[in-house]
Amino acid sequence: MMTPLIFITNDDGYYSKGIKALISVAREVGDVVVVAPMMNSSGLAHSLTSSRPLRVHTISEIEGCRIYACDGTPVDCIKLGVEHFCQRKPDLLLSGINHGSNSSINVLYSGTMGAAIEGAVMGIPAVGFSLLNHSPEADFGPSLPFVRQIVGKVLDKRLPEGVALNVNIPDTRGEKINGMRLCRQSKAQWLDSYEKRIDPQGRPYYWLTGRFECEDVGEDTDQWALENGYVSVVPTTTDFTAYEVLREWQ
Amino acid sequence: MMTPLIFITNDDGYYSKGIKALISVAREVGDVVVVAPMMNSSGLAHSLTSSRPLRVHTISEIEGCRIYACDGTPVDCIKLGVEHFCQRKPDLLLSGINHGSNSSINVLYSGTMGAAIEGAVMGIPAVGFSLLNHSPEADFGPSLPFVRQIVGKVLDKRLPEGVALNVNIPDTRGEKINGMRLCRQSKAQWLDSYEKRIDPQGRPYYWLTGRFECEDVGEDTDQWALENGYVSVVPTTTDFTAYEVLREWQ
Repeated sequence: MMTPLIFITNDDGYYSKGIKALISVAREVGDVVVVAPMMNSSGLAHSLTSSRPLRVHTISEIEGCRIYACDGTPVDCIKLGVEHFCQRKPDLLLSGINHGSNSSINVLYSGTMGAAIEGAVMGIPAVGFSLLNHSPEADFGPSLPFVRQIVGKVLDKRLPEGVALNVNIPDTRGEKINGMRLCRQSKAQWLDSYEKRIDPQGRPYYWLTGRFECEDVGEDTDQWALENGYVSVVPTTTDFTAYEVLREWQ
Repeated sequence: MMTPLIFITNDDGYYSKGIKALISVAREVGDVVVVAPMMNSSGLAHSLTSSRPLRVHTISEIEGCRIYACDGTPVDCIKLGVEHFCQRKPDLLLSGINHGSNSSINVLYSGTMGAAIEGAVMGIPAVGFSLLNHSPEADFGPSLPFVRQIVGKVLDKRLPEGVALNVNIPDTRGEKINGMRLCRQSKAQWLDSYEKRIDPQGRPYYWLTGRFECEDVGEDTDQWALENGYVSVVPTTTDFTAYEVLREWQ
């Protein structure tokens, strides 16, 4: 059997601790090509760069693992990286491990999941991983057995067309993780989103802030899983059609 | 009855012809607040600005119509604009009219639709409009009766929770538009996406380009509607869960 080719990106930047953890797992089972953003690109969702050209810098090239940094978004990294920096179509696309949650409504804003969803658009089995800890020094050790298990399973079974996995991992700080659960995306929103400040010239400016509000915490949701010490796995679609509404209206 | 409050944004910039067309229709039926990007923000999808604060500039303030320009993304404009530049929660959120298509897979990359989907997250009935003509001088005249009809209907009936409308309008260049059709999002992708060039110093750079490939053109799709001279209306969800796959796996 041919060695699997695994493509990796993230949205925290190619130098972050989370992507290094993901690379370490991927190298156990395949050849790895990394094209990841030069800089932190959190919150860039599915955005593309069209107003300027992109540059790519070689970070390291060793047998079985090539790492490049691109000055674009996570989705740019996938599209450009797969087309120009892979000899063949990858067998698997991994994004993350993100420093911070991409559960619930956060999937909409997430660069990590933007990249994974783009993988699904391109017909590559794709998984986004996130750990519920924002710290640059977060401990990814307890996540790795779950990452390893999912990577093995998706390499083996692939994924349905147009579907990526959104995997969030609770930060249990030493407590055992209870296992994995298949979930739906919880409904939620961010409230009180902007803090107004006045600059030294007396002019206003606005910082993004806000608090996460989620009242949809039934046992079938990703929020429930994470709050109860489980890894949440949400199959995530590239088709945004609201089919239930479409059927009702027709 | 209270005069409706209509919030408007776009992704082409506050000065574009398409947003002016949308403002003209909205002013016929309500008070209007516009918070739109300072600059062209095409392809920014659902991205948020968190690494720097936002600034907002007053463009004009007249009775019943206030226009502001924000140096953030379309989603920033919605979130900040509704929170800090509206006296009350808007009754309707409109995004566009975009210069260019947001049908099919383009909804994933679209700043116009990112803004509309954010409206749905915030519980505001929201519609994104796009005309299939990229020109800054595109003729929005033939679109207006359809925009007017949809605005009236959504103000009257509202929309289901968590659902925005993705409305695309064919550019029939003088031919009559055949009507409106409820559709699902067509499956498609962009191929050959980047053109590699060499700069005067001999270093490579990559421009986004590519061609749209769509083989999913059944009569229930937005691509079919547009290719046959109809306005396409796709109910679009904020819930990315792939429910069919979830049910199958459980």
